[in-house]
Amino acid sequence: MPYRAAVTDYLFMIDTLLDADALRQTTRFEEATADVTAAILEEAGKLCDEVLAPLQRNGDLHPARLENGVVRTSPGFAEGFKAIAEGGWIGMGADPEYGGMGLPMILTSAVNEMMSGACISLQLAPLMSQGQIEALEHHGSDAIKELYLPKLISGEWTGTMNLTEPQAGSDVGALKSKAVDNGDGTYAISGQKIYISWGDHDVAENICHLVLARLPGAPEGTKGISLFLVPKFIPNADGTVGARNGVSTVSLEHKLGLHGSPTAVMQYDNATGWLVGPEQGGMAAMFTMMNNARLGVGGQGVGVAEAAYQHALSYALDRKQGRAGADGTGSIADHADVRRMLVEMKADVFAARAIGLSCAYALDMANATGDASWRARAALLTPIAKAFGTDTGCNVAHTGVQVHGGMGVIEETAAAQFGRDVRVTTIYEGTNGIQAMDLVARKMMDGGEAAGLLLDEMEEDIERARPDFPNMADACWQACESMREATEWLVAQDDMNNRFAGAVPFLRAFARVLGAQLHLKAAMADKGGPREKLARFYILRMLPEHAGLLTHAQAGEADLFAVTTDALAS
Amino acid sequence: MPYRAAVTDYLFMIDTLLDADALRQTTRFEEATADVTAAILEEAGKLCDEVLAPLQRNGDLHPARLENGVVRTSPGFAEGFKAIAEGGWIGMGADPEYGGMGLPMILTSAVNEMMSGACISLQLAPLMSQGQIEALEHHGSDAIKELYLPKLISGEWTGTMNLTEPQAGSDVGALKSKAVDNGDGTYAISGQKIYISWGDHDVAENICHLVLARLPGAPEGTKGISLFLVPKFIPNADGTVGARNGVSTVSLEHKLGLHGSPTAVMQYDNATGWLVGPEQGGMAAMFTMMNNARLGVGGQGVGVAEAAYQHALSYALDRKQGRAGADGTGSIADHADVRRMLVEMKADVFAARAIGLSCAYALDMANATGDASWRARAALLTPIAKAFGTDTGCNVAHTGVQVHGGMGVIEETAAAQFGRDVRVTTIYEGTNGIQAMDLVARKMMDGGEAAGLLLDEMEEDIERARPDFPNMADACWQACESMREATEWLVAQDDMNNRFAGAVPFLRAFARVLGAQLHLKAAMADKGGPREKLARFYILRMLPEHAGLLTHAQAGEADLFAVTTDALAS
Repeated sequence: MPYRAAVTDYLFMIDTLLDADALRQTTRFEEATADVTAAILEEAGKLCDEVLAPLQRNGDLHPARLENGVVRTSPGFAEGFKAIAEGGWIGMGADPEYGGMGLPMILTSAVNEMMSGACISLQLAPLMSQGQIEALEHHGSDAIKELYLPKLISGEWTGTMNLTEPQAGSDVGALKSKAVDNGDGTYAISGQKIYISWGDHDVAENICHLVLARLPGAPEGTKGISLFLVPKFIPNADGTVGARNGVSTVSLEHKLGLHGSPTAVMQYDNATGWLVGPEQGGMAAMFTMMNNARLGVGGQGVGVAEAAYQHALSYALDRKQGRAGADGTGSIADHADVRRMLVEMKADVFAARAIGLSCAYALDMANATGDASWRARAALLTPIAKAFGTDTGCNVAHTGVQVHGGMGVIEETAAAQFGRDVRVTTIYEGTNGIQAMDLVARKMMDGGEAAGLLLDEMEEDIERARPDFPNMADACWQACESMREATEWLVAQDDMNNRFAGAVPFLRAFARVLGAQLHLKAAMADKGGPREKLARFYILRMLPEHAGLLTHAQAGEADLFAVTTDALAS
Repeated sequence: MPYRAAVTDYLFMIDTLLDADALRQTTRFEEATADVTAAILEEAGKLCDEVLAPLQRNGDLHPARLENGVVRTSPGFAEGFKAIAEGGWIGMGADPEYGGMGLPMILTSAVNEMMSGACISLQLAPLMSQGQIEALEHHGSDAIKELYLPKLISGEWTGTMNLTEPQAGSDVGALKSKAVDNGDGTYAISGQKIYISWGDHDVAENICHLVLARLPGAPEGTKGISLFLVPKFIPNADGTVGARNGVSTVSLEHKLGLHGSPTAVMQYDNATGWLVGPEQGGMAAMFTMMNNARLGVGGQGVGVAEAAYQHALSYALDRKQGRAGADGTGSIADHADVRRMLVEMKADVFAARAIGLSCAYALDMANATGDASWRARAALLTPIAKAFGTDTGCNVAHTGVQVHGGMGVIEETAAAQFGRDVRVTTIYEGTNGIQAMDLVARKMMDGGEAAGLLLDEMEEDIERARPDFPNMADACWQACESMREATEWLVAQDDMNNRFAGAVPFLRAFARVLGAQLHLKAAMADKGGPREKLARFYILRMLPEHAGLLTHAQAGEADLFAVTTDALAS
């Protein structure tokens, strides 16, 4: 059974979990009608199923390689990228003025997610371009926008993000790359950057690097960082590519997974760059871009989870063993524990997907209405969508291998590739620990107001379900109350380490509870149907996990740091 | 920081968690004094640190390969195996009459575990031999014992287990391999077996296969299966190797991990074999061997977890980033979330190791005293030790990658190898789902008596800790009571699918609660010390997970199977 993009699921969620009408009543997204939505998702689904999914194994078996300074990508990847570009999928959310489609983020998210499920290592290329498009839309000069955006949107050129240096990972402020003003509107950029996804390749004619660097005399730390656009080939005024710039690919990493995505060490030697945003405004510009990139990475986790789930289900239904079970298929899917694994996988994919779409929806409403509460909602949900989406990617891929039994570790079955490919998603774009710290610190700077409003809304939804599903509603409502208490406890901690000590369990609990409420809402739209059954499984068996997590979340730092580094090493 | 076998931990556990004196007062193990125990573990530790650990990367980078029908193992593996054999480590638990050391299982388990941490792919070779030695000790004829045991114990020959066939995985009874009586005391064995660990290699002069096959007219299913010993080279009466037997290596698997361990497809064409145990008594003989093999595989999980933990801790302490934290090391280990990960890893390694040793101890007491209640205790703990040990291997290896951040997925750091290598341990020797089903079905055929007795003892221990640690004791005691209720619920279910539906969460909860009690016992032996601090973290933050798991465990089959295979595929 080959990969099939989960078009039905996205349409169901957009129609029933989100208030799609409210979005369609805004001027900005009035064209994203139900018909347009369905047509777009079906068209993207076709691309994923027919063009991209067949490339996924190529990337793994024939990794991108560096030959004489030139990166050669995996077989078929150039054609695959071209198909994505020509379908308009790179710029689906971009400004129509520069060739974008101006569609809402819920559609971009859905399409990115289904492309990840089809071939995550290739999908990472347009995802990086999307981040760059967004950064330039917000912070680029008009000249930069006019020159670069049409090329990035059409896929003639691609974009990358250059943050990390060997000594500066999660601590971006420690970076040492330098920029010197050339006095002609350009800057000379020098330094080495690592982990540059799609840093070099042969699928497009130019590669535009967004590079964080420090101007002479700039302060230490994140405050002193500026953002520069550094193209591989310096564009001529007419948009054709000109001279080679002072940027080169030092090496490609040998990675656990994502072999089809070239991860480069990039060297900048007095490369010509253009300032994006104000001097020393680099981190602010990066943050605009990172928030959406984080949602995008969360979607990569969900996409791979979907693919791993489909792969495992297909194997299970095909594998006849033992006596015929409940549904009489005679397959291992009728064995209780295999069924448990499959249902858990599906229920978590649903929850993670619904959380990601809810986050995208909040972004859309914020962008369409300018309403600060929607902006705050999106900001709150972003770290949850990123961390829970990618944790789900890892967990579902792990369980998928388990469903395969011994075949799971045989590389030819391709079951293990999902776990290898998705592993980095819990790390890049801010590790999931960083996401959790963002949630309990920056996203709680409002004193927990955004979280409280979300919990209020969730409880209203839950109350609507109570007459039909009293048990499920009660479990969800109690869980919301526990989340509320935990949030209040967190917000009351002035010593941030008391928050950080339990940040990850807090985030996981929040995702569990959000997932439960979204499952319940789905049950309301499918009474007696399969979505109600799935919701029941999730709410009565998986939701209870939140209580233990919240105990951990509120345990504080003292007992944690009481286990000293000496004790750890003893 | 290179790998260091956790000798101190084993000695602490043997001295304080187990009643070592009771074991040393038995005739069978009176020679395993405290001094002997310490000397043996230190000697084995030295072998692991100095000889085996340096081979671990070789196995990954230079996998075993099949060349013209001959398997060539990874560089240094032949020397490593020789060092294990010459140290007497293969036969440390074997009968001294045939060259074994007759030591208790607690020592074999500890040494196997530390060897797994050093180089799991090589350690799998002696582990397979140990299983075969045990099977032959119990079920082999005198002639077979005299000929084969000294060779297997000395490591001149090695052993394998041949159960699985393409259509017969967890459902062993579906196997089709055939045996025909040659009328001269031998049998002609034909068929194909898959997933044969160390099925062929160049580290010893002969390879002895224990093969499950069916005699003509034998019943279907597991009842009709017999066990045969099929050597690669037919031994002469004097113990030298003679003619090549009709067994050949078809291929080696291309696996996610364990590259140093050749996993073979074996072909038997009228190969000469000798019956082990009675005709159609194959499964009983296999089960003797599988129980200990399961404990051994659990130990593989713990060993790899230990190594992954040490590797991650070393990286974290080395990685200076951000401001100096709690312990002023200036390393990422001072960041609250990194500290949380490291403490969770260490706490789980402790719990999994202590559970494994408790199981080994019960086996020893059963073997030394013949007491049925010790036998039942060992049987109860075996699936828990296997599943929780290997789950811990996967979880800790996963977290170890996370601690590394971006470096975690770069293969050169070797962080990812732990997760790839250990992945199969939750699958082979009975998947962890099978372990959980064994726990809630076969191991509860006593109406839950063995479980109840264990919980009684745990609660007695907990009560002794109450005056010193009232909070921890109370959390542990409540958890035991919840386990008792859940056990009673399970035992009352006649429809086995009601048990199986929640078998895995039940097993996980049992391990959590057992782990808590063992941590508490450790705290009592180290009041105010680091083991108390570690116990506090585990009991107050990780133990609470059991409650959600037990809710899942008692949810029954109806809501699970309500999610039909059609719904799963929709």
